[in-house]
Amino acid sequence: MVVRGHVSLVGAGPGDPGLLTRTAIARLRAADFVLYDALIGEGILKYARKAQRFFVGKRAGRHAMSQEAIHALMIRAARRGRRVVRLKGGDPFVFGRGGEEALALQQAGIPYDVVPGITSAVAAPAVAGIPVTHRGIASAFLVVSGHDEKVFASATHQLQPNGVTVVVLMGLDRSAAIACQLVDRGWSRGTPAAVIVDASRPQQQVWRGTLDELARDAAQFDGAGAGTLVIGDVVAIGLQVDAEAIEPAVMSRA
Amino acid sequence: MVVRGHVSLVGAGPGDPGLLTRTAIARLRAADFVLYDALIGEGILKYARKAQRFFVGKRAGRHAMSQEAIHALMIRAARRGRRVVRLKGGDPFVFGRGGEEALALQQAGIPYDVVPGITSAVAAPAVAGIPVTHRGIASAFLVVSGHDEKVFASATHQLQPNGVTVVVLMGLDRSAAIACQLVDRGWSRGTPAAVIVDASRPQQQVWRGTLDELARDAAQFDGAGAGTLVIGDVVAIGLQVDAEAIEPAVMSRA
Repeated sequence: MVVRGHVSLVGAGPGDPGLLTRTAIARLRAADFVLYDALIGEGILKYARKAQRFFVGKRAGRHAMSQEAIHALMIRAARRGRRVVRLKGGDPFVFGRGGEEALALQQAGIPYDVVPGITSAVAAPAVAGIPVTHRGIASAFLVVSGHDEKVFASATHQLQPNGVTVVVLMGLDRSAAIACQLVDRGWSRGTPAAVIVDASRPQQQVWRGTLDELARDAAQFDGAGAGTLVIGDVVAIGLQVDAEAIEPAVMSRA
Repeated sequence: MVVRGHVSLVGAGPGDPGLLTRTAIARLRAADFVLYDALIGEGILKYARKAQRFFVGKRAGRHAMSQEAIHALMIRAARRGRRVVRLKGGDPFVFGRGGEEALALQQAGIPYDVVPGITSAVAAPAVAGIPVTHRGIASAFLVVSGHDEKVFASATHQLQPNGVTVVVLMGLDRSAAIACQLVDRGWSRGTPAAVIVDASRPQQQVWRGTLDELARDAAQFDGAGAGTLVIGDVVAIGLQVDAEAIEPAVMSRA
């Protein structure tokens, strides 16, 4: 019998284990080797009962392992016949470098699959009561990385504030600069904005205000966990989250 | 004992029952009343064993029920103490009118929660091997409704082709017009494009080409099921989907 290894690139969603998919859970249960990122908690990892676990994410601002080393580790384990799960926060293909990992596996001839996960780009606003689209208010949304100033500037260059919600991932420590940049380009200072920190986790926090207030108050988010920034009129449609749900519910934690 | 009703707005994901979340399944199991849209199959509805089911979606181009009637039905059922699930394809807040439904429930004083689902905007490209973001190629993606010409034109007005992936939902029957519009605005005719029909379902189909070819060939999608249009260089990064996965896997169906 030929032992054949396999790699699954699996999205773990925004953090709440209830937002794992059935297929993600099945892959974790079958895994003998799990490579996981920061922000993936025990409530999710517990499904990988029989697996060896390797933390490969960022800790204290430094990567535990280079991207190339992650590729090599996955490939080596699969060649030894292991069932590998590469577990990523959110969705593997939304700023997760999943595309690079899939290409590396393909080039090495390793069988792999991709299991989509719930991205924070949609779920973080949702758990704060903010729909990224809303009839008559926003019929499109732009998801952009806030990490790099040039990249953000290029992706939002010429973007008009009307009708498009802007969702910024990995931009929490640049939120003041981002707010100023949009105002400098003519966006109203009163444009509603929200920051959701640790969305869907017990410690979730939501800040709401305007671009002007964001530029002034953003220092409070320095060093906060994973954060999602939402800018646009959908922030102000007035949905309150419900604290009376029948059981610990996703949105009621906000 | 006061019987209190409750409504959950639940995202069912793109179609594959394996892409349901644990919380979505828990809500369906607890439900006594399910209002569901088109494109939600028996593999998903089966979890709502004890519930009465109401189809409220579109069939043959016509809505089974107006939006106002859906609000009234949810509110009436909750007031009678029922546990209601409003089940939507994808995510409730991505073109799902979930925001309107949440506002109607809030105004009626009905306790509700929102359970995010996997949106086709990310998962449909993923199952076709297309990451919506990819280092050095796309650091942002725009999700836009293609249904209405004016809305699409306004949301994509001034959008530059470099570095941003465009994902069009509900635009399958307008794909030729959309391709022409982008070319007229200066996008290269050779910009890679893909159409994914019935993503993550057994009958999934993937078309790949360029904007030019899309403008010419789009008629073939008339009357096709739910479709997602992806435009940008990420379409051409060369990921092939894997037909050798260890079990019926999400991406291997492409």
